[in-house]
Parts: sequence; structure tokens; C-alpha cells
Amino acid sequence: MRDPFLQAAIDEARQGLAEGGIPIGSVIVHQGRIIGRGHNMRVQKGDPLLHGEMSAFQQAGRQPASVYRECVLYTTLSPCPMCSGTSLLYKVPKIVIGENVTFLGAEDWLKSQGVKLVVAQDEECISMMRQFIADRPELWNEDIAV
Amino acid sequence: MRDPFLQAAIDEARQGLAEGGIPIGSVIVHQGRIIGRGHNMRVQKGDPLLHGEMSAFQQAGRQPASVYRECVLYTTLSPCPMCSGTSLLYKVPKIVIGENVTFLGAEDWLKSQGVKLVVAQDEECISMMRQFIADRPELWNEDIAV
Repeated sequence: MRDPFLQAAIDEARQGLAEGGIPIGSVIVHQGRIIGRGHNMRVQKGDPLLHGEMSAFQQAGRQPASVYRECVLYTTLSPCPMCSGTSLLYKVPKIVIGENVTFLGAEDWLKSQGVKLVVAQDEECISMMRQFIADRPELWNEDIAV
Repeated sequence: MRDPFLQAAIDEARQGLAEGGIPIGSVIVHQGRIIGRGHNMRVQKGDPLLHGEMSAFQQAGRQPASVYRECVLYTTLSPCPMCSGTSLLYKVPKIVIGENVTFLGAEDWLKSQGVKLVVAQDEECISMMRQFIADRPELWNEDIAV
């Protein structure tokens, strides 16, 4: 059975796809409770900051360092340098990643800074991104500045 | 005489301070023209993503990779891991930094990835941050998750 927090991140990704957006979703979990969730909003809000992870941080709002340090970030796709840097700024100690087959983010940097990474290689996450990249290559390239 | 784009970043920082916010400002310059500008909006918008650099990226909106690669980011303070990661995601090749005395961000990481950094050590940038940190230490610590 899939981790329910990874499932919540996938639900966010699917919602983003249904809105015509990029299907990447994330949740931030503190002591077993989701305190922030979101999905990529590049298309919906025209905002280049709002990758899925960033939307989740934004929704969690202003939090003290003591909370971030007890959080786990769940995300459907390997986090890019922006999202990795945000996790490092806020010192989130653990990230659960849906997959890193279709895109490999700044995992080496995260590991070098002591962040614990768990990569699920979830088949639904992989197939969702594969289909999206095949359908909308120009939009995907914009999101990762290729 | 001060670089006019660094001056514009300082003007943004001063505007943020006047709004009761954190005095860090940034502009993004493409081919000699400011395409995005902003300041830290943690207090004003309650948004943990909106460091000065992030506000400038947000205001610049969706840009193709070809534009980012010709940009210079000007910022009054050494960029934290979030802002450094965002610059790396978008492959901005050069960053002009007002000062790195009161806070040293992820400059080593930026340099290791080939980003050109210029540190002005501007006295006004230094004194503005020194005064702010002395006046509002709790707010400053929240912004850098200490």
C-alpha cells in the first residue's frame, strides 16, 4: 500500500493536471499532519516560483524553524535546485520523492547537506510525468529552463 | 558612483523597510533593462517564499530559458539557498551582491556551478541590515530559519 502522504502529493499533481497545469504535487507533514499542500501553478497563476514543493511551503505559511526541523516534504518528482534550496533554507530534514526517473533534481546537493532522501520510484508518478512530457514538451522545458 | 541597478535593489529594500518588512531588495536585468524587481514580502504577504530575489523572479513572470541566460540578478544581500537554487534552476549566469558581511548565503554552491559573483560590500547595504538585525532579531531569524 502506498504511503498516504505520497498519495496526497499525487492527488495534488492530478488536480494540477485537471486544471491544465504541470502535474507535480507536494505536501509538508509535521508530526503526522499535513500543514501545507499544493501543486505546480506555473500555468494557473503565471508564477515561475510555484513548483509543487513551493506551493506547499507557501500554503504552510510562516513557520518557526522549530517546526520545519520536524517536517517531512513529500513530492511526486525529484526536487529541482529551487525546491531543494528552499528545503535547505528551512532545514527540512527528510524528503520523500515519488520518482527521479523522468527528472533528477539537486539530490546530490541535498544529500551533501545531510538531508535524508527516500525515493519511492512510484509507477504512477513515473507514468504521469512521462505522459505529460510527451504531451507538453515546451511547457515542461519552460518549467526547468531548458 | 554606485551601479544604478544595485541602487534600484537598495531602493526596493528601503521600500520594504518602510512597509514594516525585511529590508532586502533585488532586480533582474536583461540586456540593460530591469525585467523584474521586488523586495522581501514575508511580513507584507505572510509568504515564506518571497525573499527579495524571489519577488523579483515572480514579478518578471514566465520567461524562456533564453532570456534567463542573458540576465544579471542584483540583490542587496548574499543569496540564501532558496534564492541561490532559484537562480541555478533558471541558469542566471551572474549575480551582483550588495554585501555578504551580515549574512553569507550559498555562494560556494553558486560558484561551484559556474555562476559569476560580484560582491560590492556596499556600506549602505551593510548598515541597513545591521540596523534591521539589531532592531528585529526574531523576524530576521524566522526569515533564515534560525
